[in-house]
Amino acid sequence: MSDIAVILGSDSDKNIFEKISRTLIEFDVSFERRIISAHRTPDALRDYVLAADHGGVKVFIAVAGMAAALPGAVASFTTKPVIGVPAASGSPVMGFDSLFSIVQMPPGVPVAAVAVNGGENAALLSIEILALVNKTLAKKLVAFRDRQKTTVMKKDEQFRKDTLV
Amino acid sequence: MSDIAVILGSDSDKNIFEKISRTLIEFDVSFERRIISAHRTPDALRDYVLAADHGGVKVFIAVAGMAAALPGAVASFTTKPVIGVPAASGSPVMGFDSLFSIVQMPPGVPVAAVAVNGGENAALLSIEILALVNKTLAKKLVAFRDRQKTTVMKKDEQFRKDTLV
Amino acid sequence: MSDIAVILGSDSDKNIFEKISRTLIEFDVSFERRIISAHRTPDALRDYVLAADHGGVKVFIAVAGMAAALPGAVASFTTKPVIGVPAASGSPVMGFDSLFSIVQMPPGVPVAAVAVNGGENAALLSIEILALVNKTLAKKLVAFRDRQKTTVMKKDEQFRKDTLV
Amino acid sequence: MSDIAVILGSDSDKNIFEKISRTLIEFDVSFERRIISAHRTPDALRDYVLAADHGGVKVFIAVAGMAAALPGAVASFTTKPVIGVPAASGSPVMGFDSLFSIVQMPPGVPVAAVAVNGGENAALLSIEILALVNKTLAKKLVAFRDRQKTTVMKKDEQFRKDTLV
Amino acid sequence: MSDIAVILGSDSDKNIFEKISRTLIEFDVSFERRIISAHRTPDALRDYVLAADHGGVKVFIAVAGMAAALPGAVASFTTKPVIGVPAASGSPVMGFDSLFSIVQMPPGVPVAAVAVNGGENAALLSIEILALVNKTLAKKLVAFRDRQKTTVMKKDEQFRKDTLV
Amino acid sequence: MSDIAVILGSDSDKNIFEKISRTLIEFDVSFERRIISAHRTPDALRDYVLAADHGGVKVFIAVAGMAAALPGAVASFTTKPVIGVPAASGSPVMGFDSLFSIVQMPPGVPVAAVAVNGGENAALLSIEILALVNKTLAKKLVAFRDRQKTTVMKKDEQFRKDTLV
Amino acid sequence: MSDIAVILGSDSDKNIFEKISRTLIEFDVSFERRIISAHRTPDALRDYVLAADHGGVKVFIAVAGMAAALPGAVASFTTKPVIGVPAASGSPVMGFDSLFSIVQMPPGVPVAAVAVNGGENAALLSIEILALVNKTLAKKLVAFRDRQKTTVMKKDEQFRKDTLV
Amino acid sequence: MSDIAVILGSDSDKNIFEKISRTLIEFDVSFERRIISAHRTPDALRDYVLAADHGGVKVFIAVAGMAAALPGAVASFTTKPVIGVPAASGSPVMGFDSLFSIVQMPPGVPVAAVAVNGGENAALLSIEILALVNKTLAKKLVAFRDRQKTTVMKKDEQFRKDTLV
Repeated sequence: MSDIAVILGSDSDKNIFEKISRTLIEFDVSFERRIISAHRTPDALRDYVLAADHGGVKVFIAVAGMAAALPGAVASFTTKPVIGVPAASGSPVMGFDSLFSIVQMPPGVPVAAVAVNGGENAALLSIEILALVNKTLAKKLVAFRDRQKTTVMKKDEQFRKDTLV
Repeated sequence: MSDIAVILGSDSDKNIFEKISRTLIEFDVSFERRIISAHRTPDALRDYVLAADHGGVKVFIAVAGMAAALPGAVASFTTKPVIGVPAASGSPVMGFDSLFSIVQMPPGVPVAAVAVNGGENAALLSIEILALVNKTLAKKLVAFRDRQKTTVMKKDEQFRKDTLV
Repeated sequence: MSDIAVILGSDSDKNIFEKISRTLIEFDVSFERRIISAHRTPDALRDYVLAADHGGVKVFIAVAGMAAALPGAVASFTTKPVIGVPAASGSPVMGFDSLFSIVQMPPGVPVAAVAVNGGENAALLSIEILALVNKTLAKKLVAFRDRQKTTVMKKDEQFRKDTLV
Repeated sequence: MSDIAVILGSDSDKNIFEKISRTLIEFDVSFERRIISAHRTPDALRDYVLAADHGGVKVFIAVAGMAAALPGAVASFTTKPVIGVPAASGSPVMGFDSLFSIVQMPPGVPVAAVAVNGGENAALLSIEILALVNKTLAKKLVAFRDRQKTTVMKKDEQFRKDTLV
Repeated sequence: MSDIAVILGSDSDKNIFEKISRTLIEFDVSFERRIISAHRTPDALRDYVLAADHGGVKVFIAVAGMAAALPGAVASFTTKPVIGVPAASGSPVMGFDSLFSIVQMPPGVPVAAVAVNGGENAALLSIEILALVNKTLAKKLVAFRDRQKTTVMKKDEQFRKDTLV
Repeated sequence: MSDIAVILGSDSDKNIFEKISRTLIEFDVSFERRIISAHRTPDALRDYVLAADHGGVKVFIAVAGMAAALPGAVASFTTKPVIGVPAASGSPVMGFDSLFSIVQMPPGVPVAAVAVNGGENAALLSIEILALVNKTLAKKLVAFRDRQKTTVMKKDEQFRKDTLV
Repeated sequence: MSDIAVILGSDSDKNIFEKISRTLIEFDVSFERRIISAHRTPDALRDYVLAADHGGVKVFIAVAGMAAALPGAVASFTTKPVIGVPAASGSPVMGFDSLFSIVQMPPGVPVAAVAVNGGENAALLSIEILALVNKTLAKKLVAFRDRQKTTVMKKDEQFRKDTLV
Repeated sequence: MSDIAVILGSDSDKNIFEKISRTLIEFDVSFERRIISAHRTPDALRDYVLAADHGGVKVFIAVAGMAAALPGAVASFTTKPVIGVPAASGSPVMGFDSLFSIVQMPPGVPVAAVAVNGGENAALLSIEILALVNKTLAKKLVAFRDRQKTTVMKKDEQFRKDTLV
């Protein structure tokens, strides 16, 4: 059974999935991935979330655009943490719609919202949650942050070289 | 069986219900009314919508605030017309959240959005739909519009009197 | 006489019309189509709406951008259901203008707003209304939803294949 | 016949009318005042605008909230200057709706928008237009500006006294 | 001396000027055109506005982007009507900035705002003002509206032909 | 050592704390609570987060208004999950500022945003995370959701009684 | 001669002035204070800014609401630093208008914007600028920050006491 | 030691750096430049700001996008003036996020915000600050403004030539 379930509301969200899967693979975290629409396949969503919850999925990541009901719908069927990623693609109003649809959940059924198109952070957040009881992951996260620091510092160094007057 | 089903996502939406019910009663249209939450009672919502659809409800009116998934969730379980009313109450961001959550439905599952807090128009829209095959209702609608015109004209007359210099 | 009247405020809205007409044709619903501007040809609009209403049109679909008065103007001349489609094209502010101009109708004259550029849902909403008294259409709608489900499920299947690590 | 026609879309806009009428009276400009709704009494609006235009009204001021179609509807029936005042009252979204509905007029049918609730400026703008061929008014406008300057300067003086440490 | 003065805040607003000048030329209205910046050349602006006002300019059209102070600055030096055109070009926030900077003028110093990038309507509005005392212009405006109507009707006709199934 | 650390950016956020603490106490979850400002006491924040992380805190909840840097600052010092609550109090722009400051975190350092003023959901989300390895908590969450359902259903019942015509 | 000039666009901005003056007095910084309107008294503004600049004022603080041209107008007459404070009072759109009017200055004429209603920070920013060549002020700023830290820490302590379960 | 420190939150902000450095070089002002992330390298940021402050940097310019914590984080470690530049690049919501994250600083820790992507003005503002005690710079600023005026006037002249009918 996978630790993470990644659900896209539509195949137009695949570019966000790329960022999620790349990160989860980099951390060697098992994950399932599905395209299930809250509005077009509500029963399939319900069935999948209940089964995945029962089967041992620990964190759900749900990506959706426009009136992005998916993350909230997932959260309505599980008490596992649900991470919502607002998608801007296809929205004439630039993701304002999906952002509000995901972050403004009413009291009682939480969703953890990340940035518009923020696939990488959704993956990292799910890994941070898993890492609470997985020392290997916890170490990898620290190492990831260290690499990230090194990357910034190298870019800094390069930048200073490139911009020498 | 009722012609209209009015569903509130929360009892904080009762002031909007007042406007809906007053209008439906004025037109002598039969309606059911429920508080069912898309996020807190998703199965009850599903069961109710399927039953109401099967039972002969012709139009659904769904009122919800914040990440207002209710209208879209209703629409996912029925091909009857669903009217969504964004509620501003309780939202620090003034109904922008519920408006976007309701109006920006993805292709394939339509919801008819009315104005933020627009209970009366939701009721009138449902009546316009029923009136397509109900001549009595159709006449009442025309009469309602006429009274509305008269009201505006009386206000106009009074206003001109009141503001005589 | 047609069941549906589709009115564009400008020929720059033709790409939205494509989505509307494709859907109406798919459902074999009769429709008229016009370009009439609320601001440039108000009398033509009035005459057309009154005639179409009288002639038996059951639902109006009005598409407009910017200060999108068209749907409300149509609604002011008929008590038939009016569906408004906000158009983003040509608006530097991304459809915020047409969305607010259409969805925020004052009490008494309802318009059913769909998503910015949401032509397909406007058509589907009109079909849902017609289907209330047309069993063939009602069945087609259920079949459409089923095909939609199948499409999502096939995309899901393909997606899982494509992303096998 | 009056020089200015002030049209309110609803009697909830009376507080804005107060500001308009006070200014017009102060400048001794003749004006008519009406409550006519673009959506509820479209024919009355058409008839009035055509008659007022024919009768010699020189400038129209139209005040409206929410999906504020009134100024644009007036403009569609006249080539006289039309000034639109967005009203915030009764709008959960603070006048964003009426502002966009009024200012974003499509090419060909202009409306002159002033600030949300900006009744005084609507009146002043109409007076500026009349003053182009009315030397008395032109002088009054210059005097008004001078008084305005004096007022600011007196407030400045008082303010400096009041805030002496 | 010209009747209209068109002032651009920057040469990046030239595409909007094109629309203004084309319309003014079409109506055979005399106009001056300047690039003067409220922020970079405030004294030149003051001098020009005072001189133009004194010289007989009847209406000012001011085009500006971002923190678009130009229209208000012009209005502060004249009691002639000032029309403001918000420019979206160069603004990462899509003209929201210039729109608010122009339309939200404080009481006492009016500016007539038109749509973002709305050059044509700015020109038409200025012509409507001139036409109050110029019968030739007034007739041209009516003819313009008639041609506009004809254009819409021709497009309507063509559209119906093109979309015959 | 506590499982949860709740950090307020200012004592003006206490009303949000009430909602958080009430929920955490209801679930019998241990928590620390602090007022530490990202901008006024950055070193204290750093020291506390490092110590709390080292000491065994599992989830951080950070509440902040305006340019709400607190949640991101906490996240920059820990790889434990950080939940951010945008606060609307004291913000003339209604929480738009804190919402964007919290949800739009750049890739690499995730924060889980909940709704503006959404204290209860922040607490519930933290409990969902803890519950992944705490069966008692997991059962309590399910029971909480069940009670929530019962509450909605009782309100529904009462509502139907109250609105009997 | 004063080091700081504080200019209000209107006496409705006095509550913001209170915050500015309290801070400047606390730091014993000399300041002048004026009410001068960019739109109503443009010449007085020009004269004052030129005189104050010539007279030795080092930093200008300009407070204004709505289409807040004041800070930019000040900046157009001086190359001294100009700090702009957007005022929300009197704006139906909550300071969005003044914020955009102040912060979105075009290249070449800078204004330093602080938060909507952010009088205290405007004063502190001006003091930070003066402190660059005034060691006493620089020490006071450090002491202010230290007191601020102490205040937060005391509130933190009190908060922890008050919320002991 | 440099007078100005320019800090980018990411190398995606380099295009904004170009505008800053070009201006600083034009004025012959010494500056350091760094890429340091508030969220990814918070300790490096703290160390650098403290060292730069101690070493004599007089003004900090911080450029950041999305949840742009960088300027505020810099300001939390220094009482030198900090100028924040909101970056739109990489933000689906067009810089609204970074603008609010930078301009809405809480009382006590000021940041001077310039326009979204406003690199040139950030540099000019820093130069205005330095110029308070540097007569050469002050003269250069006046000369810069004069050249700017000349440029506008030349463009004006060219524009009038180009648009001769």
